[in-house]
Amino acid sequence: MHSLVAKIGKIVRLSEQEQAFVQSLFSKRALDKGEFFLKEGQVCRHLGFVEQGLLRYYMIKDGEEITYSFAVEYDFISNYESFLPEQPSDKYIQALENCVVWQIEKTSLQRLYSEVREGDRFGRIAIEQVFVQLLNRLSSVYRDDPETRYLRFMEEHREIQQRVPQYIIASYVGVKPQSLSRIRKRMSQ
Amino acid sequence: MHSLVAKIGKIVRLSEQEQAFVQSLFSKRALDKGEFFLKEGQVCRHLGFVEQGLLRYYMIKDGEEITYSFAVEYDFISNYESFLPEQPSDKYIQALENCVVWQIEKTSLQRLYSEVREGDRFGRIAIEQVFVQLLNRLSSVYRDDPETRYLRFMEEHREIQQRVPQYIIASYVGVKPQSLSRIRKRMSQ
Repeated sequence: MHSLVAKIGKIVRLSEQEQAFVQSLFSKRALDKGEFFLKEGQVCRHLGFVEQGLLRYYMIKDGEEITYSFAVEYDFISNYESFLPEQPSDKYIQALENCVVWQIEKTSLQRLYSEVREGDRFGRIAIEQVFVQLLNRLSSVYRDDPETRYLRFMEEHREIQQRVPQYIIASYVGVKPQSLSRIRKRMSQ
Repeated sequence: MHSLVAKIGKIVRLSEQEQAFVQSLFSKRALDKGEFFLKEGQVCRHLGFVEQGLLRYYMIKDGEEITYSFAVEYDFISNYESFLPEQPSDKYIQALENCVVWQIEKTSLQRLYSEVREGDRFGRIAIEQVFVQLLNRLSSVYRDDPETRYLRFMEEHREIQQRVPQYIIASYVGVKPQSLSRIRKRMSQ
């Protein structure tokens, strides 16, 4: 849990008392490889912080899984379009490795915002970061061709490429697994 | 400018002094019909508040304009993916009517966040609202078929349907203008 307090402490100042308070608001959740932090149709009830492991965000379009983002150690995870308005999610968040996640419920997050001196500042800056990242990633899924998508993966997620199964990289790039190696070959020339 | 202070005052409490301070941070900008608040390739330098008029957000895909959102009176406008990281925009924001917009630069917005007592709270809540709306709209462009898109337009933008030219509604629905009336006819049966 130290990493969570450190992450928040990079964004805003936390007194020792506030650090303890923040810790008390989060609870630990273990996810096995393949398990879901969130499924389509569920209301996303938590904001998570990844202490350990790797997850992916995906959606289903025309029966195909479209992976559009990943989260690793020290990333926050949530489907805000579901979490904030308390609407059923149209996206999945799935563990690709055994994960340790610290999670906080919405009412507790509201307390963090209100009762920590710079809580709202933290909330604003954290959401700004996620916002820009997710908007860029969703736009890219819609607009970019497979070659560009593969370049984006290598740029944004190079450090996890050994940890992600090939068929999931293919679902990020937007091609069948067998086409991925052809793209790789073409790009490496 | 009263409407801007009223809008902020609905989200957080503002003292009279803070109201005056907020007003001093914004400047007025008139946009003629067809003019751009933001063009692709420009860095978005302002957050705007629409006092009067109607604008659309669009992007270009394969040479076609894809309208994905609208803004009317009392909405905030910005391309956050450009504004926050100060990167060139890949989207356009265009006036569809003569508009009056109050705009604020990033450094002034930072002052609003820091110097108004509930400034960060305002920033957090305002961005949460825009975030959810834009993520939903971008997902919809990618995933929904024209009939669903037309239903969304009628649900989310019914009050402006008389104000939006037909070819722009078509670019929102994702069809050629001549196909729009066919969809309309089919839906009305």
